[in-house]
Amino acid sequence: MNIAKTLKPKDQLKPKPADENNLGFGRIFTDHMLLMDYQTGKGWHNPRVEPYGPFTLDPAAMIFHYGQEVFEGLKAYRGEGGHVYMFRPAANIERMNRSCDRLCIPALPNEVVLEAMYELIRVEQDWIPRAEGTSLYVRPTIIATEACLGVKTSATYLFYIITGPVGAYYAEGFNPVRIWVEEKYVRAAIGGTGEAKTSGNYASSLKAATEAHEKGFTQVLWLNACDRQSIEEVGTMNIFFKIAGEVITSPLDGSILPGVTRDSVLALCRHWGMNVSERQLTIDDIIAAAKAGTLEEAFGTGTAAVISPVGSIHFKGQDYQVADGQTGALSLKLYDEITGIQLGKKPDPFGWVVKVA
Amino acid sequence: MNIAKTLKPKDQLKPKPADENNLGFGRIFTDHMLLMDYQTGKGWHNPRVEPYGPFTLDPAAMIFHYGQEVFEGLKAYRGEGGHVYMFRPAANIERMNRSCDRLCIPALPNEVVLEAMYELIRVEQDWIPRAEGTSLYVRPTIIATEACLGVKTSATYLFYIITGPVGAYYAEGFNPVRIWVEEKYVRAAIGGTGEAKTSGNYASSLKAATEAHEKGFTQVLWLNACDRQSIEEVGTMNIFFKIAGEVITSPLDGSILPGVTRDSVLALCRHWGMNVSERQLTIDDIIAAAKAGTLEEAFGTGTAAVISPVGSIHFKGQDYQVADGQTGALSLKLYDEITGIQLGKKPDPFGWVVKVA
Repeated sequence: MNIAKTLKPKDQLKPKPADENNLGFGRIFTDHMLLMDYQTGKGWHNPRVEPYGPFTLDPAAMIFHYGQEVFEGLKAYRGEGGHVYMFRPAANIERMNRSCDRLCIPALPNEVVLEAMYELIRVEQDWIPRAEGTSLYVRPTIIATEACLGVKTSATYLFYIITGPVGAYYAEGFNPVRIWVEEKYVRAAIGGTGEAKTSGNYASSLKAATEAHEKGFTQVLWLNACDRQSIEEVGTMNIFFKIAGEVITSPLDGSILPGVTRDSVLALCRHWGMNVSERQLTIDDIIAAAKAGTLEEAFGTGTAAVISPVGSIHFKGQDYQVADGQTGALSLKLYDEITGIQLGKKPDPFGWVVKVA
Repeated sequence: MNIAKTLKPKDQLKPKPADENNLGFGRIFTDHMLLMDYQTGKGWHNPRVEPYGPFTLDPAAMIFHYGQEVFEGLKAYRGEGGHVYMFRPAANIERMNRSCDRLCIPALPNEVVLEAMYELIRVEQDWIPRAEGTSLYVRPTIIATEACLGVKTSATYLFYIITGPVGAYYAEGFNPVRIWVEEKYVRAAIGGTGEAKTSGNYASSLKAATEAHEKGFTQVLWLNACDRQSIEEVGTMNIFFKIAGEVITSPLDGSILPGVTRDSVLALCRHWGMNVSERQLTIDDIIAAAKAGTLEEAFGTGTAAVISPVGSIHFKGQDYQVADGQTGALSLKLYDEITGIQLGKKPDPFGWVVKVA
């Protein structure tokens, strides 16, 4: 498919952010976006780069009522040699297609989407910030657009990508966060949409996050919806623990998101010859390890924050410190290694990095 | 709050549907809609009736990414004496506020919303169809509109109501439907958003519904996410069983929607002196009753279909007939009674009906 481009005149481009150290996250958007339409009988068609601007949607558009939606999050980096890099972009688009399948959204043409995404990033490459820890955040999204109030799959969809320069996802930056073990609310159950990247999972997480923030915690630790014991995720990230030398994360059982950063951390730790397990841990296991002094580290993994070290875990009225409340050595090593690979500054033994421009 | 009105000139109104017996559901919308805005620090403000028309939203609007959304479904009827009636509208707006609480959306001013809704319906009353089984469907909705890609509660929201003339929700009309007992997918878990009327619950239901349709079933029967035995809902409705004279529906345990029609059916059956229980049934209980010949009736309840009789239940490769595949006497009596009350044609012992115009 040919990707049509309608670009803004140079003299109408928005000013770039003056201070790259105060970009925040998800508030600044670039000059252009990518759009592609779907219609039953016609398939995905008309990928095009256009000036960033508002959508015009009928109030009955199904996205406003029945939540048929999927999205992804990736980053583009200004790295070694001034080139533009992306990190495992095909993995995100493959996951987006798995999310589409769960949400009954027609499969995307992966190769077209990747090429169109690269094209958008090339158009917007002057927006990629250069300060340490910054990047261009890339948000592919699909929304159901048919105007109909029956619960059914939509006959039309809009695929789009918007991008924007971002700094650290958490205001705390790379500092260890306090997490709250959530016992009342659940994020997802097996058989539900937990392994898909879809809006409903995030909507359902807001209440627990809000109550945790009010109590002074940055994130919640989600437990399995049924046994209320098994560890699932932390906030909007996957979670890892290092206990007595073993690096452990929850298995992909159907209710947790198969994170690209999660997969990269597993690959790196195995590459380094560490003892790595994808196995179910319970909150009781974690507390027992904390009490025994074998809970060496805990950290969240995700595209937005890369690695987010956990400083303490709050469970049933008690705080359990992790790594003396500091950033653990493995957390730091993984952060340095992954961001080094992302920027083209470190060897890339797995072929994760794509040079876009 | 004063409700501002901007009405279309009479000569620009859309033509009304020519055939009231083929309205379908959710495809025709009237000339006007109600809008009201929320902004942190300012609260809900500016309720207004305006011509029906598209929304203009930033591609980063949070509704497109994080699903912070709630909605309701009500109907207005052209009933006895040519008056316009609504059925328990305050119950829907109260439930909407409970949904708001779960989704971290600021509470609505109920009285303002009710008055604004009545005002919209008065403006659109010529759209209310008169054919049997038809009504004006009323869809209040709230969407998160802040343009921000961080997972958080939105700082701005749009509340709106759109309306449209509708016929029977199911193409089958009041004929008994075949239902599929869903063992793979789940709708919601306790601690999740199952008791809120929010888009994510509907998005997660599409896959099971699609697969059931492909196998020739109209609806799926949802089981509890954890024990995979307890009955929850059917499709997008609550479900009732009549077993050996006892009318039984699932208790409001936190994962099922507290339906207004469900509540009305309970009240009527109690009023009629029937043996009524809100208690947990398992699918094994249902199958055992079917085999024993004591499963007298089963029916779904909801605003869209009112009463939807179940003709057969498919579980583990076998079909179990209910009420000989016919519409049961109680299903029929409830449908007649509720629609009679809704139209102002039957006595209203509970004060459910509001005369709007």
